[in-house]
Amino acid sequence: MSKKIFLSENEIPEKWYNIVADMDNKPLPPLNPATKQVLTAEDLEPVFAKELIKQEMSQERWIEIPEEVRELYKIWRPTPLVRATGLEKALDTPAHIYFKNEGVSPVGSHKLNSALPQAYYNKMQGIKRLTTETGAGQWGAALSFASSVFGLGLDVYMVKVSYGQKPYRRMMMQTWGANVIPSPSNTTNAGRSILAKDPDNSGSLGIAISEAVEMAVQDPEARYTLGSVLNHVALHQTVIGLESEKQMDMAGEYPDIVIGCFGGGSNFSGIGFPFLRHKLTDGKEIRVIAAEPSSCPKLSRGRFEYDFGDTVGLTPLLPMYTLGHDFQPADIHAGGLRYHGAGTIVSQLRKDGLIEVQDIPQLETFEAGKLFANTEGIIPAPESTHAIAVAIREALKAKEEGVQKTILFNLSGHGLIDMAAYDQYLSGNMKNYELTDEEIAKSRDTLEKLV
Amino acid sequence: MSKKIFLSENEIPEKWYNIVADMDNKPLPPLNPATKQVLTAEDLEPVFAKELIKQEMSQERWIEIPEEVRELYKIWRPTPLVRATGLEKALDTPAHIYFKNEGVSPVGSHKLNSALPQAYYNKMQGIKRLTTETGAGQWGAALSFASSVFGLGLDVYMVKVSYGQKPYRRMMMQTWGANVIPSPSNTTNAGRSILAKDPDNSGSLGIAISEAVEMAVQDPEARYTLGSVLNHVALHQTVIGLESEKQMDMAGEYPDIVIGCFGGGSNFSGIGFPFLRHKLTDGKEIRVIAAEPSSCPKLSRGRFEYDFGDTVGLTPLLPMYTLGHDFQPADIHAGGLRYHGAGTIVSQLRKDGLIEVQDIPQLETFEAGKLFANTEGIIPAPESTHAIAVAIREALKAKEEGVQKTILFNLSGHGLIDMAAYDQYLSGNMKNYELTDEEIAKSRDTLEKLV
Repeated sequence: MSKKIFLSENEIPEKWYNIVADMDNKPLPPLNPATKQVLTAEDLEPVFAKELIKQEMSQERWIEIPEEVRELYKIWRPTPLVRATGLEKALDTPAHIYFKNEGVSPVGSHKLNSALPQAYYNKMQGIKRLTTETGAGQWGAALSFASSVFGLGLDVYMVKVSYGQKPYRRMMMQTWGANVIPSPSNTTNAGRSILAKDPDNSGSLGIAISEAVEMAVQDPEARYTLGSVLNHVALHQTVIGLESEKQMDMAGEYPDIVIGCFGGGSNFSGIGFPFLRHKLTDGKEIRVIAAEPSSCPKLSRGRFEYDFGDTVGLTPLLPMYTLGHDFQPADIHAGGLRYHGAGTIVSQLRKDGLIEVQDIPQLETFEAGKLFANTEGIIPAPESTHAIAVAIREALKAKEEGVQKTILFNLSGHGLIDMAAYDQYLSGNMKNYELTDEEIAKSRDTLEKLV
Repeated sequence: MSKKIFLSENEIPEKWYNIVADMDNKPLPPLNPATKQVLTAEDLEPVFAKELIKQEMSQERWIEIPEEVRELYKIWRPTPLVRATGLEKALDTPAHIYFKNEGVSPVGSHKLNSALPQAYYNKMQGIKRLTTETGAGQWGAALSFASSVFGLGLDVYMVKVSYGQKPYRRMMMQTWGANVIPSPSNTTNAGRSILAKDPDNSGSLGIAISEAVEMAVQDPEARYTLGSVLNHVALHQTVIGLESEKQMDMAGEYPDIVIGCFGGGSNFSGIGFPFLRHKLTDGKEIRVIAAEPSSCPKLSRGRFEYDFGDTVGLTPLLPMYTLGHDFQPADIHAGGLRYHGAGTIVSQLRKDGLIEVQDIPQLETFEAGKLFANTEGIIPAPESTHAIAVAIREALKAKEEGVQKTILFNLSGHGLIDMAAYDQYLSGNMKNYELTDEEIAKSRDTLEKLV
């Protein structure tokens, strides 16, 4: 039996898929926080490259991938689709489990799918320097390589807890020439104001975004870039699902269930949207599940409201499921999932009941990760273990019910840089972080005053 | 242009290639150190699985790969052959540079090619527990996963300097269930005797082998395994070159130069022997180059003599290029290349002028690694940077001479677990270790008394 299904390089998609075109209820528009008016492209131009703003607002179904970007995708794409026969055997399940292995990218995760086009469009516009934030360092590493390819300078604000937990990712970014700053830092007003109140603040994606945006808007030759949440990022990531569709077809199967871990939505959208399209347009029965940490459960327990994308309140107001922009997530090892809100497209889909969500405690995710490592050989990133945990839940459910299900999940990255997390898990020193309703209510209630 | 050349899973080789069959001058036989007589299979049975001993001594040209092992190879094989267009452009060279990417294996290196069959043959024989040594941890990680697959216990003696430098590899081994001991240790006579003389000894592959062999021979249900040097390891690794041959053919090219980094010989043999075969049998003009560290230059500056494979003197006497079994290599980051001797097949080929060697100072290897990371995206293992450095030398020579050469090297592994080494390089704190003739003579002279 064939374990891996490969495509040839000429089967790398030529277009990204924009799910907005197929949504009956379009996502609500972002608002300018000063005026509360609908945000215009001009409002965003000091922050993002123009072509990315165009994509952000586009309702076109298919958007062409520039030839230069497709050439660079060839460094590692198409990625293999793998039948997880070892895992199936260990679970003794009738389910067929497939995973898309985005961990084979040179930076170790799916983030490069969007880093390359973002660097490309900025370069085309004559921008000289990029700024960004990073949690676990997956996005920062990807953008570091992409900036190196296009000769752009790069400042990365790295969430402080991850900066300490994941020194190797910092070193990767530096090897590719980036300037890496632990956040909150003293280099920005946003950072200084947080440190003044809480000198030991361990940081969050929300804070790091505040710092990176602040740095970008001060320099006309600089722009900010974001590795998740936004529509154009979800768009770029659809290469994952578009390739997977062809590969599932080659395997002679179609997934009943598609799973992605969920931080801001980039890898979830990437694997999910191309399949969800058939649910939206042809009424195909398919379950698309977001796997989020129970310590940061914006889709399970957040509210659908306008909120800031960052902590300090520098970004536009986005209509999203959110725990509140000043929600401070626990220091779980899945740094990439420590974010208070969900992208606007995913939030609308969730509101309309078109996607599902499951939240997973940290210990269950590492148990899933260890089983996967011992059956499939690959040590998964702590983020990806959330998707594996849901796949295992669903495979065991199929076994219990005696039905054959086809399950597909995205392995968003490998965990070789996250071994310290496994070390903690194996030594019995890892814990779960459960949120009480009161804790959730506290940060959500700050939302009331925004719009 | 296509960057990657993929094979399908049914093109994974069905047989390993044994170069001994095609050598005019066969390697000299190993000797029993007690009797100085030619070693018999029986002498080795307390140490190695029988089928591996048979392969060690075989003169058959082709040896069948068990179906179970081929199925497991499918987890990551066939590996891609990649045209290094980014590197070519940066060097502005007329040379075509290809690399075989063995770093895509779940453990991050080529070592799994031999770990799986070694665990398999031991399992088939009813062995319950394996012992081994590891330098940088590449071999130990591979054998940990292989042992996990076959349900075998595993003790890994890890060279102490690497144990400290590469904690993530230790954690990987533990995630796959292995018991990891820093070497020299107090668990063996060999370790205790070295620590008695030198309590701060940072270890070497030679010492770790002494410890692992000692532990294996004490337990009838245990066997020792080795990740390099021996003929059966070189044999298993030939899947690398056999796949590469097909892929070069698909690219419509044939290499003028084939390069592998050199520690004990496993990845060098793997990429080199299948190509060298045509030089031996059809007189094809092809240069096969071993890239070794100038701080451990056994092929460049060692002597061809009978010597022990380990430091303490527990192994058979092997006819090899050696710096002397008590040579203590400098603490370079390429831990997998810190070994005093070369395998017997490679040594004979070197003696007969059939392969070439180049030795590279540490700083040149990291310069090559950084350039590769910034042009091809992949951060290479410190071992593999030796092969890249030679490829760069040859590509620049081709440019100087204005000739088009086709260069193939093996990227034996990625360097994501070795980021601390890059950190040292980037911060300017790395140095070269040059050996004087006197230092080399000192350890080589201990050889005189052996046979």
